[in-house]
Amino acid sequence: MIEDKNKTLTSISELGEFGLIKHLTKNFKIQQKSTIKGVGDDAAVLNITKKQVLVTTDLLIEGVHFDLSYMPLKHLGYKAVMVNLSDVYAMNGNATQITVSLAVSNRFSLEAIEELYEGIHLACVTYGIDLVGGDTTSSTKGLLISITAIGEVKKEDVVYRNTAKEGDLLVVTGDLGAAYLGLQVLEREKQVFEVNPNSQPDLTNYSYLIERQLKPEARKDIIKLLKDLKVKPTAMIDVSDGLSSEILHICKQSKVGCDLYEEKIPLDPQVISTCEEFDLNSTTIALSGGEDYELLFTISQEDFPKIKGNPHLTVIGHITEENMGVNLVTRANQKIILTAQGWNALAK
Amino acid sequence: MIEDKNKTLTSISELGEFGLIKHLTKNFKIQQKSTIKGVGDDAAVLNITKKQVLVTTDLLIEGVHFDLSYMPLKHLGYKAVMVNLSDVYAMNGNATQITVSLAVSNRFSLEAIEELYEGIHLACVTYGIDLVGGDTTSSTKGLLISITAIGEVKKEDVVYRNTAKEGDLLVVTGDLGAAYLGLQVLEREKQVFEVNPNSQPDLTNYSYLIERQLKPEARKDIIKLLKDLKVKPTAMIDVSDGLSSEILHICKQSKVGCDLYEEKIPLDPQVISTCEEFDLNSTTIALSGGEDYELLFTISQEDFPKIKGNPHLTVIGHITEENMGVNLVTRANQKIILTAQGWNALAK
Repeated sequence: MIEDKNKTLTSISELGEFGLIKHLTKNFKIQQKSTIKGVGDDAAVLNITKKQVLVTTDLLIEGVHFDLSYMPLKHLGYKAVMVNLSDVYAMNGNATQITVSLAVSNRFSLEAIEELYEGIHLACVTYGIDLVGGDTTSSTKGLLISITAIGEVKKEDVVYRNTAKEGDLLVVTGDLGAAYLGLQVLEREKQVFEVNPNSQPDLTNYSYLIERQLKPEARKDIIKLLKDLKVKPTAMIDVSDGLSSEILHICKQSKVGCDLYEEKIPLDPQVISTCEEFDLNSTTIALSGGEDYELLFTISQEDFPKIKGNPHLTVIGHITEENMGVNLVTRANQKIILTAQGWNALAK
Repeated sequence: MIEDKNKTLTSISELGEFGLIKHLTKNFKIQQKSTIKGVGDDAAVLNITKKQVLVTTDLLIEGVHFDLSYMPLKHLGYKAVMVNLSDVYAMNGNATQITVSLAVSNRFSLEAIEELYEGIHLACVTYGIDLVGGDTTSSTKGLLISITAIGEVKKEDVVYRNTAKEGDLLVVTGDLGAAYLGLQVLEREKQVFEVNPNSQPDLTNYSYLIERQLKPEARKDIIKLLKDLKVKPTAMIDVSDGLSSEILHICKQSKVGCDLYEEKIPLDPQVISTCEEFDLNSTTIALSGGEDYELLFTISQEDFPKIKGNPHLTVIGHITEENMGVNLVTRANQKIILTAQGWNALAK
């Protein structure tokens, strides 16, 4: 989109800040009863009665968190919202509003920003979220998106990270490692393209991986499923930095240990085949890959019958006492101490 | 601080993201009863009962919004918080929590980021604000701060921009134009310094202007004052982009006109003398300067006796019907149509 030189593109400075915000937000409809006032005043006004308010924020920066040479702007907008909603769901809450702040260098046209907002809009419509504010400014370099998500949760429903108990089962939703492998496939294609711009890649074998990287979905459905199943997790976190990093957060904050069973880690067949092709260990990828946006939680053993056999949920381990440590139990039944090798945004 | 090459500085990547956040937030104490869970989980949990929730966000970018060659990092941290609190107070609310997201390039040491957080901490302590979350990442260029502020307000107390009525009085707090002039003084000194690094500037005559630019205060005191005086503004906005821009927001959104009296605009003596020195028109500076972070509001005429003579408040005009337009009434008693020439972050 940015590279399309055949169209006459509009400079965003032509509209000015207020004109731009008005233009970009005109298709956004208020969906939540709790939104009293959205965009257009000094602050948004929300009426969240009888519930606790959840607040979470994430910053995405071009060249650090995304590469526009293979990340379409619409997908980027969608994903930027998902990253934040995922944190609200990880508290067992319902995401209701977002603010979106944007900094754009002058290489971005109005049309490019419109495409980004299309993705944000699609995410808002799909997940029932109101856009209630933000800030738009120029940047000296690249594109930057800062989103804050607001959610609500009944006091008795909120689930923290630090409340896992010895004997609890460790459960993960969906499957792991695909988003990271999708990124590896896209990086490889980018390099091929740089050498031969006429190459036509066949990405059929990687379609799931690429979708997981470019268009992740936050697990709102799981929060509903758990309510329907009458299961309240004892602790929960979303899988953004990699399974091992998230397990360590729960264990450290809950002051417990954990045994994670390698053979139980859910992997998509494309993850397995692509790991073979790339000569990667699929367990390592699942443990350290990141960006899965699945939910990782612990439940009491007595809730096991309620989740047993559910295709969305996999029991991958159990919580032990703190001095047992946090371990991976390998297929060969060896115990290895789990270390976090997740993605470090500061080391880029 | 950044330029101090005599000290051994610490690379922030040494701590990792979670270590860095823990290190930077360790001195922050929870002050608000409504903060149930701050930093350390997927989202903050707030318990704002019986009140409406206010949400506002602002993005500050090096090279666009600030210049570190004359903005000390501690002041920058303080100011970044003020910019956001000001928006909460402009809704007649009480600011209670913030999230702080930071992107830093590798030219910033841990010590530099600590200095920035000292300013954020001072702002939080002074204004009774809890730091409840954020995100810290690297940037490919420069420093970027994205803050979201949360506030609370009783349903019956919230004041919007779009509710000014014909006949209302237009009131502004404090004085205007000083922050912009402070910036001009600092820019001039920077240029002098570039030519002659040994020059010792005497900034005594500009102390108020520089303080207004480097260490603005959000007008929490005014929200209390108005409550004490039993005055509820009919409409309110904070003065961030310049007086004329803010008056136009109120008038456009309220569908009213306004007469603003040039002779009533409150100016500090340093603003007047420095305008003379720089050959600038002080009215233009007050109208378009920006960054004053004063409050601009309208009140019913019947409330006038309550505010009369208060040194913090100046009546600068009155609201007229929409088709009378938005005018500046000059000292020569001429009416000039008011246009917004405030700061445009997109045109930088």
